[in-house]
Amino acid sequence: MLVQKKITPFSQPFTVESGFVFTQPEVAYEEYGTPNGPVILLCHGGLSSCHAAGKYAETDPQAGWWDGLVGPGKVFDTDRFRILAINALGSSFGSTGPTSIDPATGCRFGPTFPTLTLRDQVRFIKAFLDHMDIARVHIMAGPSMGSLHTLQMAAMYPKTVGAAVAVATAGRMTASGMGMHHFIANALRDDPNFAGGWYEPGKPLYSMKVVWQNIRLYYTSEKIYQQMCFDTIPHAPGSQQKRSDAVRGFLTLGMEAAVANFDPNAMIASVDAINTHDLGEGFATYEEGVRRIQCPLLLLNIDTDQEFPPRCAQEIAHILNAERPGQATAHIIESAWGHLGCVLETQQLSRQIAVWMTAHKL
Amino acid sequence: MLVQKKITPFSQPFTVESGFVFTQPEVAYEEYGTPNGPVILLCHGGLSSCHAAGKYAETDPQAGWWDGLVGPGKVFDTDRFRILAINALGSSFGSTGPTSIDPATGCRFGPTFPTLTLRDQVRFIKAFLDHMDIARVHIMAGPSMGSLHTLQMAAMYPKTVGAAVAVATAGRMTASGMGMHHFIANALRDDPNFAGGWYEPGKPLYSMKVVWQNIRLYYTSEKIYQQMCFDTIPHAPGSQQKRSDAVRGFLTLGMEAAVANFDPNAMIASVDAINTHDLGEGFATYEEGVRRIQCPLLLLNIDTDQEFPPRCAQEIAHILNAERPGQATAHIIESAWGHLGCVLETQQLSRQIAVWMTAHKL
Repeated sequence: MLVQKKITPFSQPFTVESGFVFTQPEVAYEEYGTPNGPVILLCHGGLSSCHAAGKYAETDPQAGWWDGLVGPGKVFDTDRFRILAINALGSSFGSTGPTSIDPATGCRFGPTFPTLTLRDQVRFIKAFLDHMDIARVHIMAGPSMGSLHTLQMAAMYPKTVGAAVAVATAGRMTASGMGMHHFIANALRDDPNFAGGWYEPGKPLYSMKVVWQNIRLYYTSEKIYQQMCFDTIPHAPGSQQKRSDAVRGFLTLGMEAAVANFDPNAMIASVDAINTHDLGEGFATYEEGVRRIQCPLLLLNIDTDQEFPPRCAQEIAHILNAERPGQATAHIIESAWGHLGCVLETQQLSRQIAVWMTAHKL
Repeated sequence: MLVQKKITPFSQPFTVESGFVFTQPEVAYEEYGTPNGPVILLCHGGLSSCHAAGKYAETDPQAGWWDGLVGPGKVFDTDRFRILAINALGSSFGSTGPTSIDPATGCRFGPTFPTLTLRDQVRFIKAFLDHMDIARVHIMAGPSMGSLHTLQMAAMYPKTVGAAVAVATAGRMTASGMGMHHFIANALRDDPNFAGGWYEPGKPLYSMKVVWQNIRLYYTSEKIYQQMCFDTIPHAPGSQQKRSDAVRGFLTLGMEAAVANFDPNAMIASVDAINTHDLGEGFATYEEGVRRIQCPLLLLNIDTDQEFPPRCAQEIAHILNAERPGQATAHIIESAWGHLGCVLETQQLSRQIAVWMTAHKL
């Protein structure tokens, strides 16, 4: 499937919770499938983009991050649905973010980009739907940060979301996930070449390698290291050295390409926004905030995920089903991939989503 | 208990597997308890020192790393035993290491310090015992790297070790642990100010902060972040921000003092040595190498440890008990602290060690 990234300006300014006004906001998105079909809206993970499926060119080495779920005959069937994938506000992949030009100065926003909340990002998604004249989405879905956007959207705009799939998710940010996010922000900000956020564009910071390797440690699990780098190398003279070499390669896999693509200010903007996630914010209890979600909800967490352990999904299902039995389905995916299972375990995800869609006549 | 660190030169040169000869090796150690009692030998974790118990001065904010286990009336009872704690070869806390002066040049070894294996470190411990005229230790024990030294010592010198306690341990280095170690070595070596290992002494590298924070993420567990920084702050307006602030504090706790104390070259020497750990090296099978251990062995791993999961302890016990039923006891400690439970869960450790010592008349 060959796809295109589109970038469109909003016709209205966009104001965030801090009071900052984006006078010329832009949104990047991709669109697949059947133009008149029911809309499926996809949101991406914290370090990703709106490139959810397909390839930009036949020669691309990799397809989009949920390509296993999106396409003809796949669970998000392009022969049946109109599928939109949106890039988050604050990202560096096309929507307005720290690498965008600030119309007030003619320079990049850089570190002057305002602090966002996760709710700001969700209101930006709603503004995109308004801009596209879409009053209701059939299903909204996403992994990781995209799952937080999905839950928050279903809570803030219950009439807009017909059904929701949240993969590797939580109703409020976990403390361990905040730990990883502060690690990322501290590593980048303390880098001697960060220069207060005015680092040289296009020259990856040393700290980006540190962040990348830590993502490969924290967002996976010890089981995948064992499977990929230990069990594959049988006992023999020098086998530990070979395992160690395999581990070093696995730890840094994809690093050079990744650090060339990410913008540190955008990474900080994303993790700061995610840290604010709390469905209960503004409500007397967390449960009251969660209960704003009224649509059928599928929650898929991964057993080895350290950021969003299984209990995070089960907690939401428990709150919703106590009031409306059967509204929420929580299923725990078994995977050695940890948090990254949210984009790597596409077979298991497809199966669970298909069963749930059939059960709810979606 | 007030204690002293002692540093003593060996009377003999010490040669490592790579062929390098230390012409004037020195060893740092501490000694507690009853001079004529049976000897308990303690080995430290990878980032620690021989300061196992007591304080150097009443005003010290913290006692040694196993102070909960060592003292009058404690499980390693100073009224009964002669207790020796040794600093590993390659450390920066007194024994010969990268910060020592190379007698051949009059300068610090720095990055010219030879690559060590874990077996080198164990032969260094044996040389220390020979130097002290100790033919047999009653019990050898240690957490983390110290547990690897303990197992390897019991395997290489079965007549020297009367009984052994390995806390947070494995018979061969795990792939996930190697991942963390490569992360540490890469982060330090890639630091713009590492200067090929000739960084300015006494001026902590930026990367040391990165390493410290990653230790606080990887060697703990998501459960402790939840307990310390989330469950303690009840839902209220702005509670997620308070939790986020608590997490940032927890992540960087002790960082400034720690980075001032560690030497990056020594840290690399330690993690490189640990990565070579494999009781099976040189034997037809891993099991054959493990079966060299002949003494009673207590293995205590922690349920949330990502470096040495419970299966690592159970595997060793299984191999030994298949041949000599009852030789090994594996017990899994429940703790939210992850790997760091090996020095923090002293009450549970004391209880398990006491039961085991009684059962084996130690």
